[in-house]
Amino acid sequence: MDRRSFIKKAGVAGAGAAASTVLAAPAIAQENPKITWRLTSSFPKALDTIFGAANDVAERVKASTNGNFEIQVFTAGEIVPGLQANDAVAAGTVEMSHTANYYYWGKDPTYALATAVPFGLNARLQNAWFYQGGGNELLNEFFATQGLYGLPTGNTGAQMGGWFRKEINTLDDLKGLKMRIGGFAGKVIEKLGVVPQQIAGGDIYPALEKGTIDATEWVGPYDDQKLGFQKVAQYYYYPGWWEGGAALHTMVNLEKWNSLPAHYQAILHDACAFANSNMLAKYDVKNPISVKELVGSGAVLRPFSQEILTACYEASLATYEEINASNAAFKKIYDSQLAFKKDAYLWMQLPDYTFDTFMMMQQRANKL
Amino acid sequence: MDRRSFIKKAGVAGAGAAASTVLAAPAIAQENPKITWRLTSSFPKALDTIFGAANDVAERVKASTNGNFEIQVFTAGEIVPGLQANDAVAAGTVEMSHTANYYYWGKDPTYALATAVPFGLNARLQNAWFYQGGGNELLNEFFATQGLYGLPTGNTGAQMGGWFRKEINTLDDLKGLKMRIGGFAGKVIEKLGVVPQQIAGGDIYPALEKGTIDATEWVGPYDDQKLGFQKVAQYYYYPGWWEGGAALHTMVNLEKWNSLPAHYQAILHDACAFANSNMLAKYDVKNPISVKELVGSGAVLRPFSQEILTACYEASLATYEEINASNAAFKKIYDSQLAFKKDAYLWMQLPDYTFDTFMMMQQRANKL
Repeated sequence: MDRRSFIKKAGVAGAGAAASTVLAAPAIAQENPKITWRLTSSFPKALDTIFGAANDVAERVKASTNGNFEIQVFTAGEIVPGLQANDAVAAGTVEMSHTANYYYWGKDPTYALATAVPFGLNARLQNAWFYQGGGNELLNEFFATQGLYGLPTGNTGAQMGGWFRKEINTLDDLKGLKMRIGGFAGKVIEKLGVVPQQIAGGDIYPALEKGTIDATEWVGPYDDQKLGFQKVAQYYYYPGWWEGGAALHTMVNLEKWNSLPAHYQAILHDACAFANSNMLAKYDVKNPISVKELVGSGAVLRPFSQEILTACYEASLATYEEINASNAAFKKIYDSQLAFKKDAYLWMQLPDYTFDTFMMMQQRANKL
Repeated sequence: MDRRSFIKKAGVAGAGAAASTVLAAPAIAQENPKITWRLTSSFPKALDTIFGAANDVAERVKASTNGNFEIQVFTAGEIVPGLQANDAVAAGTVEMSHTANYYYWGKDPTYALATAVPFGLNARLQNAWFYQGGGNELLNEFFATQGLYGLPTGNTGAQMGGWFRKEINTLDDLKGLKMRIGGFAGKVIEKLGVVPQQIAGGDIYPALEKGTIDATEWVGPYDDQKLGFQKVAQYYYYPGWWEGGAALHTMVNLEKWNSLPAHYQAILHDACAFANSNMLAKYDVKNPISVKELVGSGAVLRPFSQEILTACYEASLATYEEINASNAAFKKIYDSQLAFKKDAYLWMQLPDYTFDTFMMMQQRANKL
């Protein structure tokens, strides 16, 4: 709708005297133009916490523009499949997506640095690097080559390592293990003899039940609980070392982003910033309840052994070396993230870690 | 604005024909009304990271309203002293403040629950409780009784415990120790024989140098470095158990908040949400560099002993018991925070803590 073509009907408030005026339309029309965009999510409604971040963005933008900038949110599959969300944005089929950029790792591994890479940053540090460590600017240099513009929008926190039908203690236990695990992590863990499997969410449970696969990773307690994995694979391992703080992004078609009025860009930016915090907050409120319920219904919590974590870490470093050798865009962003990571994990050992450790000791002693 | 009162003008491009219309000026003027508000910060410009959050809010709001909602930011002392910021807001002298609500602890200890209380929540959990644990709603019920409305706007992360002229190993070392430490923490640590001192920022260094005081707490490496404490008190202890994640708020005069157009409320809300994340991000990028420089210039890092932390924890619990017995508003909010804390510190032990611990081990082994 072209708001420049609106004029005010005379006598609305019953004012008898109609003045003869011309409304200087353009200046007013441009103030809060009416825009409707479509957003395709990579997620189904069932993952309400992740999917909910896109709804947050839409609601906040609508509220901040007095209803004039409307974003219609579609679930994965309604317009395009979840893993093609960014392609639809780049092609201009829709204006926006809400997605995990590591889904596009096969197209270019650089995408993964926007979400999570093995032994990368935790949720808090991911935000520090995005907002103040130059991370999101670097990512947007890369995204621009893909016709995209990205805004951080949500984080899951560190994820669980997944569900295993038997205990995994040594590296030998990994050999030949058929695990539903994708992308970057699959490539790394393959080096240790795991056979990565690509299975859609709804097909995991029967595969695990029949023993077609031995293990699966998904997200964390709140999301995993809905799929009931504890009934068919009771060992629930942690941490998911391939996503220490998986970050979602709102991705906008670059030309569409550039065409937005500057104040709509600002509104969308801040709406995403709120959704970014709010999603992690939801997980942090919901996961504790779910993990207790899962343990109550048979899940057995197990940390990965240091032997396994160390081998996975070394396999990750080897993978980074391979990619860095052949992909300059990846290396540039990886180096920035790594430099920050070295500093940040020094600092995080001091007040934050000692404070949290003391609090956890009180929790374990039932003294909170 | 009542958009139903607009009609579509035929022949937009036909510029010549001037329609006879009445411009209902107020309706249009209200779309993005011109508003100028004043914000008094509790902080000086020198604390650029904390003070900067208020600037972030002002800049984002201005950008999102096309320059129409302007917030003028004043440093502590320009309009009222830093510790009277909320009083000025409640009285309507200014529309807003950016402050640490625990400064008003003497007026009502309930205020402190908005910022940090001894052995409370860390930065991430503070946000989870604010946004999804009902925390900020509960705080706003209390703030409403004070004529105020609050929006979370910034977090320092866990702070350092401060600078000590000599090593502090046992509870005996605390007896008679003159420490610059305020508010709630001062009241707790007094139970252990420490003599709390109230000294303004600029006067701490000479007092420490002369030995008038034995110790001081301030914020963390980036802010502390500017004051040069390591030259006169080399032992730099952690964690600051009285602020595991100190949260700042934008406080708005309640009537002024209610008078804002709904979309300006939404814009201000999201601007604060961005500033909230951005301030922690700044600290997480700046503190690592400063802590290395401080150690390079003579600071000696020391964790508080478990004996001291445990005694401080027990003294804190006793203090809560005293306050809960006499202050229903405090108890209601404290109980909500405590219930969440118990769950959250169980969950935080699993993937997040084990992931972070592994990363810190690599950092220590120089393997990152």
